[in-house]
Amino acid sequence: MTAAIGIQKTTTPKAKPNQDNLGFGQIFSDHMFVMDYTEGQGWHDPMVVPYGPLELDPSVMMFHYGQATFEGLKAYRTKKGSILLFRPFSNMERMNVSNERLCIPLLDVDFAVEAIKTVVSVDQDWIPSAEGTSLYVRPFIISLDPFLGVRPAHRYKFMIILSPVGAYYPEGINPVKIYVEKNYVRAVKGGLGFTKTPANYAASLKAQEEAHHQGYTQVLWLDGVEKKYIEEVGTMNVFFKIDGEVITPSLEGSLLPGITRDSSIKLLQSWGVKVTERKLSIEEVAQANAAGKLEEAFGTGTAAVISPIGELNYDGNVMHINNGQIGELSQKIYNTLTGIQYGEIPDPFNWIVEVK
Amino acid sequence: MTAAIGIQKTTTPKAKPNQDNLGFGQIFSDHMFVMDYTEGQGWHDPMVVPYGPLELDPSVMMFHYGQATFEGLKAYRTKKGSILLFRPFSNMERMNVSNERLCIPLLDVDFAVEAIKTVVSVDQDWIPSAEGTSLYVRPFIISLDPFLGVRPAHRYKFMIILSPVGAYYPEGINPVKIYVEKNYVRAVKGGLGFTKTPANYAASLKAQEEAHHQGYTQVLWLDGVEKKYIEEVGTMNVFFKIDGEVITPSLEGSLLPGITRDSSIKLLQSWGVKVTERKLSIEEVAQANAAGKLEEAFGTGTAAVISPIGELNYDGNVMHINNGQIGELSQKIYNTLTGIQYGEIPDPFNWIVEVK
Repeated sequence: MTAAIGIQKTTTPKAKPNQDNLGFGQIFSDHMFVMDYTEGQGWHDPMVVPYGPLELDPSVMMFHYGQATFEGLKAYRTKKGSILLFRPFSNMERMNVSNERLCIPLLDVDFAVEAIKTVVSVDQDWIPSAEGTSLYVRPFIISLDPFLGVRPAHRYKFMIILSPVGAYYPEGINPVKIYVEKNYVRAVKGGLGFTKTPANYAASLKAQEEAHHQGYTQVLWLDGVEKKYIEEVGTMNVFFKIDGEVITPSLEGSLLPGITRDSSIKLLQSWGVKVTERKLSIEEVAQANAAGKLEEAFGTGTAAVISPIGELNYDGNVMHINNGQIGELSQKIYNTLTGIQYGEIPDPFNWIVEVK
Repeated sequence: MTAAIGIQKTTTPKAKPNQDNLGFGQIFSDHMFVMDYTEGQGWHDPMVVPYGPLELDPSVMMFHYGQATFEGLKAYRTKKGSILLFRPFSNMERMNVSNERLCIPLLDVDFAVEAIKTVVSVDQDWIPSAEGTSLYVRPFIISLDPFLGVRPAHRYKFMIILSPVGAYYPEGINPVKIYVEKNYVRAVKGGLGFTKTPANYAASLKAQEEAHHQGYTQVLWLDGVEKKYIEEVGTMNVFFKIDGEVITPSLEGSLLPGITRDSSIKLLQSWGVKVTERKLSIEEVAQANAAGKLEEAFGTGTAAVISPIGELNYDGNVMHINNGQIGELSQKIYNTLTGIQYGEIPDPFNWIVEVK
């Protein structure tokens, strides 16, 4: 895994998009990283090549049996013009946890981060500089054997694609309305919930669609066994501040170990805020709300960093949290994390990796 | 959905494979069916075209969020040369159940069966005629928007590909060894378990791989809530004959409503055999075995039709079933189903659809 990364530059660069209207995940840069895996040979031929379509046989296993993993992180342009990644080693270590569960050959984490740095560097002109914008980095692996049988594949492709993305909150942070899901289940212990794999997202679509129809932005998932304990909100981890203490569901095997989740915990600890990872039932949250002790609630994830929850509908019991405003602590985590990510405040945790 | 199916024939037909060595799902015929879906336009442009690769943007949602469904059935060549499909309407109705859960636009079932008949007819020379062989038919739908966001797609492709497959039991039916899985979970009520979608197969790989390493062919899945009730075996439904009664797990939302399962139930009922769909715990099976009352066990599925279970390992308790031989009733179901499928015995259930 020490092969040099070949670079083949495009001869037809695309026009850069308007930075005021980037949206999320809709525009892709000029290049991508690709590396193949062949059983007996390992990962081979790492290359940065022009961004372009894949040619795949209709029988490739990815289409039928979903053996795949992915990650998501961002590259940030600082005001001084340098390029920063936020905890890329954590992402690629997590990708290997996903790979192990999905029977996909592991990556060399250092090499994978080197690959991210290389493709980001080649496409550095694609990193937007407007306030709150960034370059979203999507590493992913798909299984490629043209074979209709259920077994781990013998051939894979690891790719990294890049998408310039807009500010998540162009008009200021707007708390979201969340519907507590009681019928559909995202994942259960023993399944894939702790991995970043397409299956978890496929499982989430229906509940999300039904919540949308009722005017809610996302669902809050409960555990699949007792339908009692809080797991995640939409595709984010979730935190509740109750009577001064911040509580987030512990990692019991069915929820994603979010990197923004972990960063938020470490920040809170460094501030001396009591933060607890444990099982948290929706009943406990409802009771805290009834007692006037539910002070803040927020989701954490790479895309939004912090997504405050202004309203929670649990079986018709509508809880309005912090008068529908972002809480003080939520705002402080948001400001600190984005401050570190954009290189505007010190990084005491060594989370930042600069792309030279 | 009444558009005529266009047919564009290959100008470079491939050589037909040796019928003695077909394997399963490794060889594909000369043509495939394709039909696109575009939001606002619906399903459009149904075509039989030469079998060939798809050109897909690396950002298409299928690669990242796994929104997809599939089906599996077979076309059989009778001794007289006619071509039969087994319950294709049931497959396409089930595909719509999967589509509904996965937020994929529904197909017109009659049209989808017409599409199967058309592509099978175009490639009828690919249906092998050797004993026990058939043409495996794989309809599938993938989501195509080039967009890294979690929502139902606006564009899809429905395809049908064909693979000549060998006899599943070229040397006679060989009962399999099954490991009862206690750690990994395939699916849970509220999730995707009752659908045919890549997610369920991705979730199954790890347990299957670990079972292989211990010398077992497949795993028997227990429910994800109590880890107590039997769900499926590998990618098949499962039946147990205990003290004269045939018992199969009831469809509680986490297991696939198999068409071979349903056909087996209907056959048993027609023979006056007591067959019960209910929750069945692994403990009950173990106790029946200890009492000498576990008479037969078998899986049902399209690929093998009937897969007898000769050995079951539950937490170190190794149960040998029917002396490792196929049971009388298992054999009778196998003979009857394959007899109907190959047109060799009457079809009182109207399961057979002829391709003219």
